[in-house]
Amino acid sequence: MFTNLEHLGLAVHDLEAATALYTTLLGQGPYKKEHVASEAVDTVFFQVGGSKIELLAGTSPDSAITKYLSKKPEGIHHVAFEVNDIRAEMQRLRAAGFTLLNEEPKRGADNKLVCFVHPKSAVGVLVELCQSIPPTDHE
Amino acid sequence: MFTNLEHLGLAVHDLEAATALYTTLLGQGPYKKEHVASEAVDTVFFQVGGSKIELLAGTSPDSAITKYLSKKPEGIHHVAFEVNDIRAEMQRLRAAGFTLLNEEPKRGADNKLVCFVHPKSAVGVLVELCQSIPPTDHE
Repeated sequence: MFTNLEHLGLAVHDLEAATALYTTLLGQGPYKKEHVASEAVDTVFFQVGGSKIELLAGTSPDSAITKYLSKKPEGIHHVAFEVNDIRAEMQRLRAAGFTLLNEEPKRGADNKLVCFVHPKSAVGVLVELCQSIPPTDHE
Repeated sequence: MFTNLEHLGLAVHDLEAATALYTTLLGQGPYKKEHVASEAVDTVFFQVGGSKIELLAGTSPDSAITKYLSKKPEGIHHVAFEVNDIRAEMQRLRAAGFTLLNEEPKRGADNKLVCFVHPKSAVGVLVELCQSIPPTDHE
């Protein structure tokens, strides 16, 4: 089940400038900065109600965000929905004909298991499914 | 104050096909369809947790959505934040140097007062502020 619009991911060139701008826009500062080594991104999170705004900047030429911004302008990169059972949702969507970008859920930012759905499957929107990792699963 | 990521607006060519696709993706059907004559758009709303997904299709060549889709691919058109005092937020953002696309709040879909912030002001994201119209203000 899709339970929440968990976050909106924005690809930006200059993380510091974008953080200052969104601090002004939203009227509050970020609650977290996190480097995700596996994705080669620096992230900054703002909380708005039950959802988050995630600013993303690539930290290497191989980063998906760096590659994205070499072809497209800054802006919304993906929308993430919280699900209560990511493997069940992946199986359901695969059976319904959606193209998933991950065979298995992978570790994402903010202590989540994540999987991406190809934008061609979702009217041009890169959709992320995410499920919080229960504390007992922490390494 | 920004209190919620109220909805995400998606510009689509074929509202019926996009509605069927998002019904499958989200695992549930829409809760509302609404024609907004003032904007020349047909809209379909899905609820996910405390946020909504709004599919938007233009109903005339003059519609902002039709014009948008003549230049850009289908996908995320805008992100809307619920605010508790839209006029105060507009004044605050104008004073902070943001470019607003409306001088005054206007009536939008879903019984809201809305105002848009220029994407150039917000790292490429078309931001909507919206405030629910209290029942006593209904016409």
